[in-house]
Amino acid sequence: MPKSNNKEEILKLLQSVSDGKISADDALLKLQVQPFEDLGFANIDYHRGLRQGIGEVIYGKNKTDEQIKKIVLNMLDKGLTDILITRISQKTADFLISQNIDLRYAPIASLGIAKYAQKEQKGLIVIASGGTSDMSVCEEAAITAEVLGNRVERLYDVGVAGLHRLLSKQDILVKARAIVAVAGMEGALATVIGGLVSCPVIAVPTSVGYGANFGGISALLSMLNSCANGVSVVNIDNGFGAGYIASLINKMESAK
Amino acid sequence: MPKSNNKEEILKLLQSVSDGKISADDALLKLQVQPFEDLGFANIDYHRGLRQGIGEVIYGKNKTDEQIKKIVLNMLDKGLTDILITRISQKTADFLISQNIDLRYAPIASLGIAKYAQKEQKGLIVIASGGTSDMSVCEEAAITAEVLGNRVERLYDVGVAGLHRLLSKQDILVKARAIVAVAGMEGALATVIGGLVSCPVIAVPTSVGYGANFGGISALLSMLNSCANGVSVVNIDNGFGAGYIASLINKMESAK
Amino acid sequence: MPKSNNKEEILKLLQSVSDGKISADDALLKLQVQPFEDLGFANIDYHRGLRQGIGEVIYGKNKTDEQIKKIVLNMLDKGLTDILITRISQKTADFLISQNIDLRYAPIASLGIAKYAQKEQKGLIVIASGGTSDMSVCEEAAITAEVLGNRVERLYDVGVAGLHRLLSKQDILVKARAIVAVAGMEGALATVIGGLVSCPVIAVPTSVGYGANFGGISALLSMLNSCANGVSVVNIDNGFGAGYIASLINKMESAK
Amino acid sequence: MPKSNNKEEILKLLQSVSDGKISADDALLKLQVQPFEDLGFANIDYHRGLRQGIGEVIYGKNKTDEQIKKIVLNMLDKGLTDILITRISQKTADFLISQNIDLRYAPIASLGIAKYAQKEQKGLIVIASGGTSDMSVCEEAAITAEVLGNRVERLYDVGVAGLHRLLSKQDILVKARAIVAVAGMEGALATVIGGLVSCPVIAVPTSVGYGANFGGISALLSMLNSCANGVSVVNIDNGFGAGYIASLINKMESAK
Amino acid sequence: MPKSNNKEEILKLLQSVSDGKISADDALLKLQVQPFEDLGFANIDYHRGLRQGIGEVIYGKNKTDEQIKKIVLNMLDKGLTDILITRISQKTADFLISQNIDLRYAPIASLGIAKYAQKEQKGLIVIASGGTSDMSVCEEAAITAEVLGNRVERLYDVGVAGLHRLLSKQDILVKARAIVAVAGMEGALATVIGGLVSCPVIAVPTSVGYGANFGGISALLSMLNSCANGVSVVNIDNGFGAGYIASLINKMESAK
Amino acid sequence: MPKSNNKEEILKLLQSVSDGKISADDALLKLQVQPFEDLGFANIDYHRGLRQGIGEVIYGKNKTDEQIKKIVLNMLDKGLTDILITRISQKTADFLISQNIDLRYAPIASLGIAKYAQKEQKGLIVIASGGTSDMSVCEEAAITAEVLGNRVERLYDVGVAGLHRLLSKQDILVKARAIVAVAGMEGALATVIGGLVSCPVIAVPTSVGYGANFGGISALLSMLNSCANGVSVVNIDNGFGAGYIASLINKMESAK
Amino acid sequence: MPKSNNKEEILKLLQSVSDGKISADDALLKLQVQPFEDLGFANIDYHRGLRQGIGEVIYGKNKTDEQIKKIVLNMLDKGLTDILITRISQKTADFLISQNIDLRYAPIASLGIAKYAQKEQKGLIVIASGGTSDMSVCEEAAITAEVLGNRVERLYDVGVAGLHRLLSKQDILVKARAIVAVAGMEGALATVIGGLVSCPVIAVPTSVGYGANFGGISALLSMLNSCANGVSVVNIDNGFGAGYIASLINKMESAK
Amino acid sequence: MPKSNNKEEILKLLQSVSDGKISADDALLKLQVQPFEDLGFANIDYHRGLRQGIGEVIYGKNKTDEQIKKIVLNMLDKGLTDILITRISQKTADFLISQNIDLRYAPIASLGIAKYAQKEQKGLIVIASGGTSDMSVCEEAAITAEVLGNRVERLYDVGVAGLHRLLSKQDILVKARAIVAVAGMEGALATVIGGLVSCPVIAVPTSVGYGANFGGISALLSMLNSCANGVSVVNIDNGFGAGYIASLINKMESAK
Repeated sequence: MPKSNNKEEILKLLQSVSDGKISADDALLKLQVQPFEDLGFANIDYHRGLRQGIGEVIYGKNKTDEQIKKIVLNMLDKGLTDILITRISQKTADFLISQNIDLRYAPIASLGIAKYAQKEQKGLIVIASGGTSDMSVCEEAAITAEVLGNRVERLYDVGVAGLHRLLSKQDILVKARAIVAVAGMEGALATVIGGLVSCPVIAVPTSVGYGANFGGISALLSMLNSCANGVSVVNIDNGFGAGYIASLINKMESAK
Repeated sequence: MPKSNNKEEILKLLQSVSDGKISADDALLKLQVQPFEDLGFANIDYHRGLRQGIGEVIYGKNKTDEQIKKIVLNMLDKGLTDILITRISQKTADFLISQNIDLRYAPIASLGIAKYAQKEQKGLIVIASGGTSDMSVCEEAAITAEVLGNRVERLYDVGVAGLHRLLSKQDILVKARAIVAVAGMEGALATVIGGLVSCPVIAVPTSVGYGANFGGISALLSMLNSCANGVSVVNIDNGFGAGYIASLINKMESAK
Repeated sequence: MPKSNNKEEILKLLQSVSDGKISADDALLKLQVQPFEDLGFANIDYHRGLRQGIGEVIYGKNKTDEQIKKIVLNMLDKGLTDILITRISQKTADFLISQNIDLRYAPIASLGIAKYAQKEQKGLIVIASGGTSDMSVCEEAAITAEVLGNRVERLYDVGVAGLHRLLSKQDILVKARAIVAVAGMEGALATVIGGLVSCPVIAVPTSVGYGANFGGISALLSMLNSCANGVSVVNIDNGFGAGYIASLINKMESAK
Repeated sequence: MPKSNNKEEILKLLQSVSDGKISADDALLKLQVQPFEDLGFANIDYHRGLRQGIGEVIYGKNKTDEQIKKIVLNMLDKGLTDILITRISQKTADFLISQNIDLRYAPIASLGIAKYAQKEQKGLIVIASGGTSDMSVCEEAAITAEVLGNRVERLYDVGVAGLHRLLSKQDILVKARAIVAVAGMEGALATVIGGLVSCPVIAVPTSVGYGANFGGISALLSMLNSCANGVSVVNIDNGFGAGYIASLINKMESAK
Repeated sequence: MPKSNNKEEILKLLQSVSDGKISADDALLKLQVQPFEDLGFANIDYHRGLRQGIGEVIYGKNKTDEQIKKIVLNMLDKGLTDILITRISQKTADFLISQNIDLRYAPIASLGIAKYAQKEQKGLIVIASGGTSDMSVCEEAAITAEVLGNRVERLYDVGVAGLHRLLSKQDILVKARAIVAVAGMEGALATVIGGLVSCPVIAVPTSVGYGANFGGISALLSMLNSCANGVSVVNIDNGFGAGYIASLINKMESAK
Repeated sequence: MPKSNNKEEILKLLQSVSDGKISADDALLKLQVQPFEDLGFANIDYHRGLRQGIGEVIYGKNKTDEQIKKIVLNMLDKGLTDILITRISQKTADFLISQNIDLRYAPIASLGIAKYAQKEQKGLIVIASGGTSDMSVCEEAAITAEVLGNRVERLYDVGVAGLHRLLSKQDILVKARAIVAVAGMEGALATVIGGLVSCPVIAVPTSVGYGANFGGISALLSMLNSCANGVSVVNIDNGFGAGYIASLINKMESAK
Repeated sequence: MPKSNNKEEILKLLQSVSDGKISADDALLKLQVQPFEDLGFANIDYHRGLRQGIGEVIYGKNKTDEQIKKIVLNMLDKGLTDILITRISQKTADFLISQNIDLRYAPIASLGIAKYAQKEQKGLIVIASGGTSDMSVCEEAAITAEVLGNRVERLYDVGVAGLHRLLSKQDILVKARAIVAVAGMEGALATVIGGLVSCPVIAVPTSVGYGANFGGISALLSMLNSCANGVSVVNIDNGFGAGYIASLINKMESAK
Repeated sequence: MPKSNNKEEILKLLQSVSDGKISADDALLKLQVQPFEDLGFANIDYHRGLRQGIGEVIYGKNKTDEQIKKIVLNMLDKGLTDILITRISQKTADFLISQNIDLRYAPIASLGIAKYAQKEQKGLIVIASGGTSDMSVCEEAAITAEVLGNRVERLYDVGVAGLHRLLSKQDILVKARAIVAVAGMEGALATVIGGLVSCPVIAVPTSVGYGANFGGISALLSMLNSCANGVSVVNIDNGFGAGYIASLINKMESAK
């Protein structure tokens, strides 16, 4: 399926009508039946790859090991590679490997990649973080971006309370085509970086902190209210989402 | 100043030290003194243009007519063009025009542009909105993007409660290089568009609605929790910010 | 358009393909172009009537008098009747009437009905309210239900702090096929009614009250947490929505 | 008791007064003493069946195994069947079975049914969900509706980020007499379905998601602010409540 | 009606059944029909006086002058006195007086009393406030308590930031039978008073303050979390409610 | 100390000054040194008994077994009886008993009473609850009131969704001198009871429920916004506080 | 009164007891009667000057012109100078001046100073702000600090989105003995300054901004979660409080 | 590194340019490279000691034992002493000691100090707390202040519900140069202390309490709204931050 072309299929259907091979009535229903696979508990969306340039990503949390296995095997059968499985434990990763699935697992990011196909990494995405404790979110972003074929540079623990740490990396920041700014607590990192560079900044608030941090709300609001231009925000702890968007941006080609 | 080059200036300073024209001690202080203009009540930041490829944008709200006039005149003196002044009333616009400032004013967007220099509009940014009531936010985004040199297509009133309205525009959506999705109430538009396209979507929650809408929180949370990939979010009603980010993305050139 | 049939139209299109009158390629695009009218600022959705058994409802708030007038005239041109326009002022109503629009206006509900076609009122919907102050929301629900062809009984000011007021109306309550329970403050009315009857109860929290009422949040949470079965909730002050749902339920026919 | 008739009993009491068998004074008190059973820790409400067409439902959470057992046995003694026990663990179910209670247990829904009496399933209720992770809430709704005698169709994992998955099921959706839309995260499913169908939609926000999902608030607000008509909302994760309301609606008979 | 006796009336009804003057069926319905007056927009609850020892209180906000007038006249017709009308403006008071209603108006409290009957004031209720700005809430409480026949002592502007102001009044505080503690901002007054006395303290948070005061939430939470025993809380700015409860307590008689 | 008299002590001090036995300077400091005991980690407040008619109550949560033991022993040494220790586990109770402390423990209420002295129970306090799950909060209130010398009647599981359960107990309700209304979920019980009786009602929101219950906020707001007069509120789950206030009220004597 | 000495007065009272001029009983009561002035609506606290080194500050909001006049005149009578009156309008200031009160009024800060006595300004307090729009809060802080006798340096519009503006002022920042950091929106200024200096930073969140700024909550949370050491926070828009605390710190003398 | 001098280093660099030993271009980059150590997962900030008079403090939470060990050893290598490690368990402390790190551990405060160097303790900081349960936060503040060289006095369990406990310690309070007021629940302690003293008060809300305490929000809001002057606030449970600020203030020297 991922090798076929969606538009062609629909045209083929319309031509079958044109050719009288199928009645208009029947086509009406078929027309809306899209090429996804029904596993009973999950509809795998093979169109997404066509529409978005990346295959289905599996959100592992709240899924059983068996469910994940079935989804992955089904996707591998279709010839898909570089299948990202987010938020899975080492235990789940071990299980998948024991089932002969070719899986790489990144424990800090709790991220698995089935059938990883090394590819050229282009452009430059910088992942910057405020503190050591944000590392799992950072790595989710970084590895997502790498798997999607981007060159990634990590700048960790460059929080704004020690500004020189960040300023000393300005040469790297200005070369980036997209920056993912990961920070908990007061979330000021996104604004300060946003003021230093001219590329888009994707801000990821994290739930790191305590007290009036309120599980990341503090950083989230701070980032949404950023007085720097060029900063947009994703959900709390959503490293994958930020890495994905940074990849979309980094891989842009010149407008014609 | 806007015509000079920041890096060169600093090199020149360091060379003056090297040449003995200025002492190391004096250079230490000068090095951090940046080329902004102090008007007493406002420090105009001419570096931002250098760093971010766009001149200072004036946030008009909470500023007096006199303050805005002084800032604009100061910027025009430096040779700047296309100065955006957001959130100003018709009254303020009329005042600025009466002071011989070359100003275009867009009343729906409450947006002024001083010394508008028509330029080529490239690529394609789509501004989609859920309802007629979101139009002021949409226009702030659309005009910002146009002034920054992007081609803009407006898809207004394509909310998801009448899905066919949106689906009938799919041919435009898929051509976009960046989409700004503006919606109040339940904010589902961003997610639905995010599922249909492969370019980055910048979601703008609006304060339109009533009751449990809570001034835009409902749409904001909805957009942050979007299950579609590629969606990032800006502040409630922040049309300018979304238009600015969409412009950064649309104007990306291929990575080398 | 409202007299035509959506399904037939699509079949006709497919038959044109079958007949060779139109190419498959062209049909592909047309297929998704739906029969709504583009007024520039608003896409009127004529399909909704087909899909939902009621014409487009105009949410009047945040629209100019001119915009409302254009939308109404456009709808009347299509032969639509009983066009509800919610949240409009007496001033707007007077304007529409001055434009020769056949409009009835209910000032307490801030509701207008263009080209009201008296119809038989069937079944029974009860609108119950906690206090006199909730009357505008109640009337929005009641008139909506009446215009949609339902018999409506109003039980106002039967708040639970004087339980006998409500209990004395039990004979009416048990005859209802759907009940709209409107209450601000502590919102207990929905739960008490929910415990007394066997039909669905649609709860409408209102913003009436003060202090820790928080603009209706108190009643909203109370209703969502109702320990009575059969109670569902709509947005704060959303009388129209509740009247609409009650109408859908009251007009149900026996399952075959 | 469930075989007797409440109204008749009260009439009988009043006739005893009329016959002089009981004094007016004594009747005054008796009149308000209703036929519920006092177990010390719980008052079982046998009237509810009369009033609402379904027996007492036991909310299992926060009750001990012994308390649940006593309530169930007491109800079975009265001849009740199809007793729903929500939110109980497998362990509790096993205990009840070990006490010779005829119990069916649905582990995904954490739902038990004592003395299940197979009955004809009529009409059609559709349970649609945004993702695999919402399945426990969905099943609570689905089984509740089935036990109450409704035909149920499950459409799981049809979230709006892959719109074609939902659109391909439109033929089922339009046949439904009531739809339960279950979704976490941004909760857009309820609005999109609400725009596609003409029957009442009961929206169930779920606590599935993370970050700014805030345990279901995001989906709750999204659903309350739905721009689609016909959508009402129940409490977060309240599958039982939604299934119950859908049943009330599906079993409506034509108004006379 | 207020001179009759509720219990007697019901007995009379039951005796009519016993005497054969009325059928049991008819009595069944009548039994729940209570002696309130239906004005169309308001059900005046004459039972409340019987049940609660005070006539209906009119919540004036959101009612029109005409509505209030009709309710008051209806109540005066029944022979009621000391009718409290809360939250009305001077303008409304003037209107009522112009309609020959015997009304006293307290402008600071925005409170009217129709047909005020001077009575003996017994016991002692103290109304203490944190600052001058809380005075309208204080006076609503004080006058309510006075009209209900209690002796009231006012201790205004004794906030805890100047503790000696409060401590110097300790002799009055310890004589009180109930204390209403009114405070905005940090609301500490209730706790400090609660620690000094042995009578019940009714705490009234006010919306006075700014910033993180959030319209009284700060004081409300502070009072709910009071570490002093004997403190209970009413709604923000609810002076009437606090005065009413203090009156109930002050008028308690010794248990037999 | 509890046998001495606070006022006398201070007078004695002042007389020592008058007699020249102590200098004015020294008296100045002593005057503010109150008779509490410093245990290093806790200042036991023996004055409270004098001021409030009940000894220090020990809030057991967050205290170690050893700390509680030391505080209790110290109080027993002073001759105190009926020492309430709230929120302690069976394990802590067992430990205290093993240390030869004369303790009664109520496991449902998690409440211990050291040296319980049976006393006459006067008046009547009713503890009413919405559901079985609120029982621990109810029992904390009930036992507190009993230990303080009040007669207590328990009405459990009389939630408003089955109104007749509550109405059948009206004869008990109207005899109460104070009522504690305990309810989670939508908290309507307090309002309904408040409308039925003329005594003060102390409302206790509980954290029982799920979803939009938000740990008791829903019931708390509902109770604060009660449209019934005479209802005041204590903190979520604060059974002790409510029982204590009900006791203060029940034990009021007639004003002289 | 302000010239007398509190301690001496109390000693004098105790000596009167010692001398037999006053009975111990009478002294007991007097002892707690403190030297504040009761104006009926306000208790002026002359002790505060003794306790806190500054006279009573009048919070002007919610007070009538007449009330403010009376309080000021009363204070001037006592010989007080430098009386701060916060949050008053130009109109109120004009009124006070028209009453022959020697008043200076700062319109941006909405602050009046009665009988301003020029004094030496010592040390250094820096007031830094993120944007022009925060100026009223800044000036309230700055003038408060100046009136209290501190040297003040203003650094306005040095927000972190243009970091060089702030860094160029580092020489002033490091000389400060206390810094007031005023910022709305994302409030990052406090953290960045906190990382650059070693003196205490008092952070003032402002309500400037829009959307998810929520009237200053965003900046408040950001500042409370600051990852920089030495930062404490005052209420939203509380310029006076911050200026006052900065003054306390700046005027510290070396510990002995 | 801590023995060197930051300014000198930069001058040396500039002199190298002046001497021709390094090119201006190279100096440009070096100039911003600050003396921090990169451990891969953490950038230790040795400049902070220079800027803020205290070495890097390690926030232990969310760091592994191995990470903490590496950071500590690296800091000890640089000759640092008195390294504070906050929020670590006894287990982590034991591990560090087992690795031959000279560590003192305070279990109540969960605080470790590596290479503690006894120093003279000057001035006076008072740590006051509302209840025994706040002790861990208090001790974090107290030990932080002691390690930084301040004399500390602890006043625990002096909550305002028993005011005399606090008043009896007034002689200690008035001697303090800075006070840390730690309180949960209603947080009134900070305001009452703020009204009694003239030194700065740093308020620490704690998460101690239950119900509407909301994990410390209640106390936080109470403290932010304090009506006493001189009170500023830190994050919930942030004992370290408060002790640090109190130390900055206590160690102030007289302005010259």
